[in-house]
Amino acid sequence: MRIADRTRALGTETAFAVAARAAAHAATGAAVYPFHLGDLNFKTPENIVEAANKAIRDGKTGYCPNGGILPLRETLANDVNSRRTTEYTAENVSIQPGGKPVIGKFLQVLMNPGDEVLCPTPGYPIYESQIEYLGGIVRPYGFIPGKNGFVIDLEGLEKAISPKTKAIIINDYQNPTGASCTEEERKKLAELAQRHDLAVLLDEAYFEIHYSGTGKSIVDYGDMAKRSVLLYTFSKKFAMTGWRLGAALGPKPVIDLITKLNVNDESCTNHFVQYAGLAGLTGDHSGPAAIVDALRERRDAAVALLNATPGVSCYTPEASFYLFPDVTDLMRAKGFGDDYAAFAEDVLAKTGVSFCTRLHFGAPLPGEERRYIRLAYSGIDVAAIKEGLGALKTYAGG
Amino acid sequence: MRIADRTRALGTETAFAVAARAAAHAATGAAVYPFHLGDLNFKTPENIVEAANKAIRDGKTGYCPNGGILPLRETLANDVNSRRTTEYTAENVSIQPGGKPVIGKFLQVLMNPGDEVLCPTPGYPIYESQIEYLGGIVRPYGFIPGKNGFVIDLEGLEKAISPKTKAIIINDYQNPTGASCTEEERKKLAELAQRHDLAVLLDEAYFEIHYSGTGKSIVDYGDMAKRSVLLYTFSKKFAMTGWRLGAALGPKPVIDLITKLNVNDESCTNHFVQYAGLAGLTGDHSGPAAIVDALRERRDAAVALLNATPGVSCYTPEASFYLFPDVTDLMRAKGFGDDYAAFAEDVLAKTGVSFCTRLHFGAPLPGEERRYIRLAYSGIDVAAIKEGLGALKTYAGG
Repeated sequence: MRIADRTRALGTETAFAVAARAAAHAATGAAVYPFHLGDLNFKTPENIVEAANKAIRDGKTGYCPNGGILPLRETLANDVNSRRTTEYTAENVSIQPGGKPVIGKFLQVLMNPGDEVLCPTPGYPIYESQIEYLGGIVRPYGFIPGKNGFVIDLEGLEKAISPKTKAIIINDYQNPTGASCTEEERKKLAELAQRHDLAVLLDEAYFEIHYSGTGKSIVDYGDMAKRSVLLYTFSKKFAMTGWRLGAALGPKPVIDLITKLNVNDESCTNHFVQYAGLAGLTGDHSGPAAIVDALRERRDAAVALLNATPGVSCYTPEASFYLFPDVTDLMRAKGFGDDYAAFAEDVLAKTGVSFCTRLHFGAPLPGEERRYIRLAYSGIDVAAIKEGLGALKTYAGG
Repeated sequence: MRIADRTRALGTETAFAVAARAAAHAATGAAVYPFHLGDLNFKTPENIVEAANKAIRDGKTGYCPNGGILPLRETLANDVNSRRTTEYTAENVSIQPGGKPVIGKFLQVLMNPGDEVLCPTPGYPIYESQIEYLGGIVRPYGFIPGKNGFVIDLEGLEKAISPKTKAIIINDYQNPTGASCTEEERKKLAELAQRHDLAVLLDEAYFEIHYSGTGKSIVDYGDMAKRSVLLYTFSKKFAMTGWRLGAALGPKPVIDLITKLNVNDESCTNHFVQYAGLAGLTGDHSGPAAIVDALRERRDAAVALLNATPGVSCYTPEASFYLFPDVTDLMRAKGFGDDYAAFAEDVLAKTGVSFCTRLHFGAPLPGEERRYIRLAYSGIDVAAIKEGLGALKTYAGG
């Protein structure tokens, strides 16, 4: 069978290769510390599970509206509004089988072939993959080391804008760096989007995985609510990654087209899973709160050990469940220079610590000289974090 | 926000407007007989529900492999092989959130913009919509009235093939006509596909909704297994429409690319729902058998009443849960000529019978003179069938 040309531009998430190497190492009987996983090792809260079982018993097993059941759309609109100044109603919500489908659907509805899209690097690799697959041009903008955490290279971002730039992808709170935007960044992003009339994909997948205070959304700045599609997911807050439940929120004409894509692509999202998500939003919040508390403990344990490791330095992010330590000096000390693959392999073999590297998150920027790895602490308990990163510290001579 | 040009070519399923009219009529307190629904009013069999509950309890709530869990892929390959001469293994299976996603993914992987694709009419409207959305050209081929049921206009099909024809969509057992291919048709389709080196989407969504004997698959003819992607769904056989579970089966290079689209589009299909599907395939088959038995009773009741209705004639399909009666003479007798919308509205107002018409299933062929409606009996019990079609018979003066 002759394969269509468009598939040549289709990228992937290369983190799966890391998982395969970790599994092979574990198969030899060695201990593996899975910092490469972006999945959570928490149980989905019981009230959500109960709601799913009840919905199945109640016969919510047939098709439902393409854009999702009305009570979930209404409740999610209100829930999102309660943390932002938005005034979304059910008409502004299209339920999706996960947060990820919003990326491709946003680009299909708002990007023409040949349009340029501003895209964070390091960043979630599916942004680049989908932009290029759909015929757009990736214009990367950097997350660079700042005083207290990674910051957006605003100067570089502004320089990257041309008359062909039609959209920007913003991921606040960010994978892989864990960065939260500063007030200055949010204002500047909103100002640039308005000045250049950009459509905005606002990926807030980690908005509620927040360790001090509450999240602040860029959608509240300037006219961002009018030009943004907000990516919402139930995956992280409610430990529902495998349930596949998310949503797009935005202006009605765009949401209507996103739902029209659902008519063509998958009819609807699983019917009874939507009742489960509804229970998550309306029910007892002790489950999600316990998840954030556990993640905070893990973050603190991991950051302390990383900063006690010779040749490694790491910020303390206020959100997400990722760390993006600078390992340049450790890689040099061990003689790996910038050979990420050899370094990762050596660390896995000698300590069992498995992680993704900078290379899994988009092409490095010109002049990018420091070396980073990404550690996710969503799928590993505090005891294992201490064991694994303790071994890494020893490996580094600490 | 400026909407991207590609969305102008995006079609939809217009049957939703019929559902809205039926709901409005029901809201007046009138009885409505919902023959427009392609959904099932059966409960999902208990062993499948139990398996879902168990999988949730067992923590199958995180991400799973992009192409689906290995036991489901293996078991489905064997199950499909047991009814065909194929030799699929897990490598030939990509699990999807429904059967419908296979349509768009097949076209993305095998159709270039400008390629022509042979597509049945009347037929499932999403074929046309996705072909045109992805930049292909629809070349319709007809299902026309034959001796014992609708048959493919093989002469017209052959004439529609040009050097630009790259693929054919075959829907055997067919929506909306309920037609099963004859032996001659299967041989001819396989011969044409081989001669013109066509990629084949074989939509077998209704393969196991079969009332006498068992289904015979076109994939068994000639070299079809090498050039076909088979669309499988759990929706109909197991009354799982709202669970969203299906699969693409085909040659490994194509299946690998389809799974790569899953990486980009939705990560994976709901994890625990896959264990539910596995239980459906391996467990007690009395549930699916009872569904087919009930559907057979409905078919027989509906066909008998339709053929007793003046100005209406209807075949007795051996598969699917659709009837596609010829209502030309009734429409003429009632003075509607070829105004389907006015006819449907009049029938709904006077009898409560709600249905889709020929117009919901692709553009009529040149010279197509007879008028048809589609009645689905998947969502309506025998007693309501008798009431509703009894009222239609009276409406027609019978």
